Amino acid sequence: MKKILRNCVFVVLAIALLPVSVLAQSRRDKEQTYVLENPYAVTKITPPQGKKIKNVILMIGDGMSLMHVYSAWTANRGKLFLDNCQTVGLSKTYCANKLITDSGAGGTALATGHKTNYHAVGVDTEGRPLKSLVDFAAAKGKSTGIAVTCRLWDATPADFCCHNSDRDAEAEIVTDYVNCNADYVFGGGAKLFENREDGRDLFKELRDKGFQTPRSWDDLATIKSGKVFAVPYPEDTPLPAERGDLLARASLKGIELLNQNKNGFFMMIEGSQLDDYGHFNDLDLLMQETHDFDRTIGAIYKWAAEDGETLVVVTADHETGGLTLVDGDLQEGKIVCKFSTGGHSGVMVPVYAFGPGAEEFTGIYENTAVCDKIKKLLGL
Amino acid sequence: MKKILRNCVFVVLAIALLPVSVLAQSRRDKEQTYVLENPYAVTKITPPQGKKIKNVILMIGDGMSLMHVYSAWTANRGKLFLDNCQTVGLSKTYCANKLITDSGAGGTALATGHKTNYHAVGVDTEGRPLKSLVDFAAAKGKSTGIAVTCRLWDATPADFCCHNSDRDAEAEIVTDYVNCNADYVFGGGAKLFENREDGRDLFKELRDKGFQTPRSWDDLATIKSGKVFAVPYPEDTPLPAERGDLLARASLKGIELLNQNKNGFFMMIEGSQLDDYGHFNDLDLLMQETHDFDRTIGAIYKWAAEDGETLVVVTADHETGGLTLVDGDLQEGKIVCKFSTGGHSGVMVPVYAFGPGAEEFTGIYENTAVCDKIKKLLGL
Repeated sequence: MKKILRNCVFVVLAIALLPVSVLAQSRRDKEQTYVLENPYAVTKITPPQGKKIKNVILMIGDGMSLMHVYSAWTANRGKLFLDNCQTVGLSKTYCANKLITDSGAGGTALATGHKTNYHAVGVDTEGRPLKSLVDFAAAKGKSTGIAVTCRLWDATPADFCCHNSDRDAEAEIVTDYVNCNADYVFGGGAKLFENREDGRDLFKELRDKGFQTPRSWDDLATIKSGKVFAVPYPEDTPLPAERGDLLARASLKGIELLNQNKNGFFMMIEGSQLDDYGHFNDLDLLMQETHDFDRTIGAIYKWAAEDGETLVVVTADHETGGLTLVDGDLQEGKIVCKFSTGGHSGVMVPVYAFGPGAEEFTGIYENTAVCDKIKKLLGL
Repeated sequence: MKKILRNCVFVVLAIALLPVSVLAQSRRDKEQTYVLENPYAVTKITPPQGKKIKNVILMIGDGMSLMHVYSAWTANRGKLFLDNCQTVGLSKTYCANKLITDSGAGGTALATGHKTNYHAVGVDTEGRPLKSLVDFAAAKGKSTGIAVTCRLWDATPADFCCHNSDRDAEAEIVTDYVNCNADYVFGGGAKLFENREDGRDLFKELRDKGFQTPRSWDDLATIKSGKVFAVPYPEDTPLPAERGDLLARASLKGIELLNQNKNGFFMMIEGSQLDDYGHFNDLDLLMQETHDFDRTIGAIYKWAAEDGETLVVVTADHETGGLTLVDGDLQEGKIVCKFSTGGHSGVMVPVYAFGPGAEEFTGIYENTAVCDKIKKLLGL
């Protein structure tokens, strides 16, 4: 009996320690079935009629392609908040030195309007720092912010605030947040902000610069004004099922603070972990994350519809996982999918726009044009 | 030696007789590499500035999803005629009784504005005949036509001219062409128009109705006016490498004839065999067919740009093959792709519009809306 128990412990340990890439490999090219047991209600959200654009909210589903969206739409019985968008465009995602990009170069294109090298964040192909929409908006007197569900050294948030040719230089990358122009930051990754090998306490440095640095949602929720750098988790935020509507809450809290500026604001919100679950070839978690991001889109669309002067642009940096919906049932919310790769695939990603200026986002264009269009519309 | 020769003959015969589905299965989930040795030049085509819409040309790439387009774009060194489109929308392809549609129900939605059952052509879910854009346009005094590279009993052309709950009732389906409102038809499939089991000679019946029935491109090329039913091949047209720019020539010949009507025209042009090569999981032929369709799009865009009163809408009925571009090189025109299925997959397909009225085609909508929008714009 003891021996059996010991063997069981070994097996459990072995599974727990199995590298994610091996797990993903074991799922590759095989059918996975997912049923959304409790579909969520989706309301029709009427876009505002006015033409004035005071604020722009850019929402990035990391690795979220058309296939992810249609799979999530099927699982939720043919309904997504994203369907309320007014216009659609297609963004070419290749980067300066590779056909298939990553979140470093892909997000840098969206943030700065420049194609750069694979794995670079916020720098050009020569490694020189690039200004991002956060910087351009701040220079025009707008407030700026980002809200993500990943660790803050991850490429997408870093593309908007940090500068490094190597996205893997994580401890170095996060130091750039101290000098970033963002007035509101929400994300994970506290472990590289404190108890650092170089002895720096980045939270203290941020406080010295006038930031409040809440370390829990409850603390963040009480803040009513001022600059905020909120990092409640040592690495990523918890799984979608555990964290609830945290991304929507954190985003709306950011909007509440940034919108106090009469000059308006720019905000980037990321559904960060679609990409991770695409890499893991994990359909269940991928759908949970995509639905969470869609509900966040719904919350933002509702706010923007009431505000009337906010353009919301939803897009992705690239596709992850080579997802294909090979079978399913709309009535049952059942999807049968296959992943073709543990990496990214090469395909244009849709750009969905809602609010004043949405008409500028149709057609086929480079991913850099997303930044250029936002700059033009905001006069940056 | 004789025995070796005999064995060789057996092997060759066995390969030749290997069912396509088995061949496709053997290619499934495996990487295939394709390099376009001779990329073609793509010109910038400026859309017309006027607002008047006299003609509509609907171009359907059968099974042509975003992944097919981006793969073809990569292979041609980052250039496609399709990139000249002005607006992009997304069409939901599910049919009345299945999440993943076929060319019967998918094309019927585009042709008639009605969702119908899987495998139905030109009928509703009760089997009742539906009017198509060919009928609506003819009723308003416009000329109408179709040009395809497949046999004419195939679902897409049949969706516009024929009526049957079962797309496999091929010999029955083609008899509907005799009573179709199309003034110009080009496609393959002569073997079911003559020497039929029921004794009918459909070509003779068409001639009795005033059609010219050329049986070769050379004969068709000499025709300068009047109604034409051109079927130069017993089944499909030859492979892309053999037929050259036949689809573009046959389409422009149709336009030449239909455009003699001062009330304008509606025409449907199909890149038919993208779907076949998706089913076969044959990347080489799929890319040949996609590039042929893109060059045809270029020829049509050029004509429409000069005409100034023609809207061109390019879309697909569904995706075929579950194609993923997993690696490649833009400079070398090299793509590495995987197919996930020998059937269709579930995903929205883009709608690309060029010319007056293009702005109506952005956003997310049902595939039936493509028909509705064309009807509205032409006042049908």
